[in-house]
Amino acid sequence: MSRFWSPVVHTLSPYVPGEQPKQDGIVKLNTNENPYPPSPRVLAGIASAAERLRLYPDPRATRLREAIAAHCDVAPEQVFVGNGSDEVLAHTFQALLKHEPPLLFPDVTYSFYPVYCGLYGITHDEVPLDAAMRIDISNYRRPSSAILLCNPNAPTGIALQRDAIASLLAEQQDRLVVVDEAYVDFGAESAVPLVARHDNLLVIQTFSKSRSLAGLRVGFAIGQRPLIEALERVKDSFNSYPLDCLAIAGAVAAIEDDGWFRDTRARIIASRETLARDLRQLGFDVLPSLANFVFARHRSRSGADLAAALRQRGVLVRHFGKPRIEDFLRITVGTEAECARLVEVLRGLI
Amino acid sequence: MSRFWSPVVHTLSPYVPGEQPKQDGIVKLNTNENPYPPSPRVLAGIASAAERLRLYPDPRATRLREAIAAHCDVAPEQVFVGNGSDEVLAHTFQALLKHEPPLLFPDVTYSFYPVYCGLYGITHDEVPLDAAMRIDISNYRRPSSAILLCNPNAPTGIALQRDAIASLLAEQQDRLVVVDEAYVDFGAESAVPLVARHDNLLVIQTFSKSRSLAGLRVGFAIGQRPLIEALERVKDSFNSYPLDCLAIAGAVAAIEDDGWFRDTRARIIASRETLARDLRQLGFDVLPSLANFVFARHRSRSGADLAAALRQRGVLVRHFGKPRIEDFLRITVGTEAECARLVEVLRGLI
Repeated sequence: MSRFWSPVVHTLSPYVPGEQPKQDGIVKLNTNENPYPPSPRVLAGIASAAERLRLYPDPRATRLREAIAAHCDVAPEQVFVGNGSDEVLAHTFQALLKHEPPLLFPDVTYSFYPVYCGLYGITHDEVPLDAAMRIDISNYRRPSSAILLCNPNAPTGIALQRDAIASLLAEQQDRLVVVDEAYVDFGAESAVPLVARHDNLLVIQTFSKSRSLAGLRVGFAIGQRPLIEALERVKDSFNSYPLDCLAIAGAVAAIEDDGWFRDTRARIIASRETLARDLRQLGFDVLPSLANFVFARHRSRSGADLAAALRQRGVLVRHFGKPRIEDFLRITVGTEAECARLVEVLRGLI
Repeated sequence: MSRFWSPVVHTLSPYVPGEQPKQDGIVKLNTNENPYPPSPRVLAGIASAAERLRLYPDPRATRLREAIAAHCDVAPEQVFVGNGSDEVLAHTFQALLKHEPPLLFPDVTYSFYPVYCGLYGITHDEVPLDAAMRIDISNYRRPSSAILLCNPNAPTGIALQRDAIASLLAEQQDRLVVVDEAYVDFGAESAVPLVARHDNLLVIQTFSKSRSLAGLRVGFAIGQRPLIEALERVKDSFNSYPLDCLAIAGAVAAIEDDGWFRDTRARIIASRETLARDLRQLGFDVLPSLANFVFARHRSRSGADLAAALRQRGVLVRHFGKPRIEDFLRITVGTEAECARLVEVLRGLI
């Protein structure tokens, strides 16, 4: 602490990301990374951009916005890009979610959301998931400034269908609805096709999961032009060039390699179903996930104890010591071998 | 505009970065990039990190903080890194400069500073440079919350000596003094050696200029531990991983290649002196620069007209249409050939 801190700094409760172990040989199923490398075209794209390192990047990342627009069937002007979807979310909180009445989001969801509220002084209400840990949109029909949903939700993995989002948008025409689709590519329905008809929808996605580029820090938002303009105004008042020239080139190459994307995604979806089946056989309740992780609770063993025991045996999973979910483990879907190793270690523990 | 914008978005006046032309063959002297490529070791470092793209980077960028600390003779805990010095500055405004009485900075300085004030709702007073366009620290002895100086100042290029900064720190022990040293490596004295004795000093530097890495987006701050902790608290409430794995690896390689750094810096300093002499012979007043640019005003020709005429002939320089400096051109020091081309074109115009 220091007499020089701005008042807000004293009140912050920063987000704590999952551990990034420095030693090798760990089965790392704790931060929802893709177990497969990115498309080989990504490395070629990065290598070709490296000769421009001495120059500032394109502050608008035009090539990348065009590539995302083509992939998502929207106009480039409807795309905003940032340094990971965390930066896109941060700018969204400041540019579009800072209003007087409370922002609504689920009580169990991405734990960065309340941190952003603290950073920007935004009042929020947490709306409980139902008993089956699902988002029930009928619970969002209360006074609010805006609604933020993670779909599929983290850390549950449970997805809303596009029809449910469409109903919410139609009911709440004067409230912004932000849908964080970090995990949407593993089987859920994206809300992007609703953007054309709804000026109150902003959809956020990332290259970190389905594109295997957590290390490159690229995320994006899609919405009608006035929403994107708000994000651009905040970004241009914060950092002119948040995406470096290598990230722009690598992300363009990734989104253009649709074959690689479909193949790796299919493998992860198949591994997820095998993992969920194996966990159920070991006595876990496994929520129905459409993400690249599963959220599972053993019927008789404490989540904290299991996470610690796994850690001792070289397997990292994520455990949140929070109400309602303290007995769950969030387990990233790894390679077939990594999932098999996890199941083998669990079999020895249970 | 949209009914969904947060109130602050309506009031922002975003920063406008210098043009990044898409066509080739332009003599680009408008954004203070280094005319020489980065150390070859940077490309090797990036290539070796590319195999880790699927994993999140180290959120603390430990290797980079250690490398910067070794170079600057401070402890790694006294180093904060960010996505370009613009992001480091943004976090500094939010974490350390948001207090009730006004923040002071010069009337002619980096034009992003008032933009940050607008983004975070910070009151500021602009302190006029003296008649010779110098910062006079005796003008900063007035009530304020903090003082922000760019040294060498941009766009003037004029530097304060370390003794002047030391005097200011001693006089203003209860006010934070932030020194933005984006251009310090081209001949000015850094305030970093003062950090050990002064808990009210934060120094900010960048890899964009002297390390030829504008395209990689890496900046850093050095200060005593409580100041760095404030920046970390804001960063961890904004984006866990602002530096991608390639940026971390490339910046480590750059700071470890001291020979490359010294050689390219010496070439730029020599070119600057030649360019300043040539401009004076053409009838320009050239401020005494210790940066990688010169700030020059012709005795009889308008700055706006000259900038436009240069642009027509394929030479980009920066012109600011602002009071006191509207007749100046800010000209980046390019290669010997680029500087010669600029002088040749000017000779045809004047």
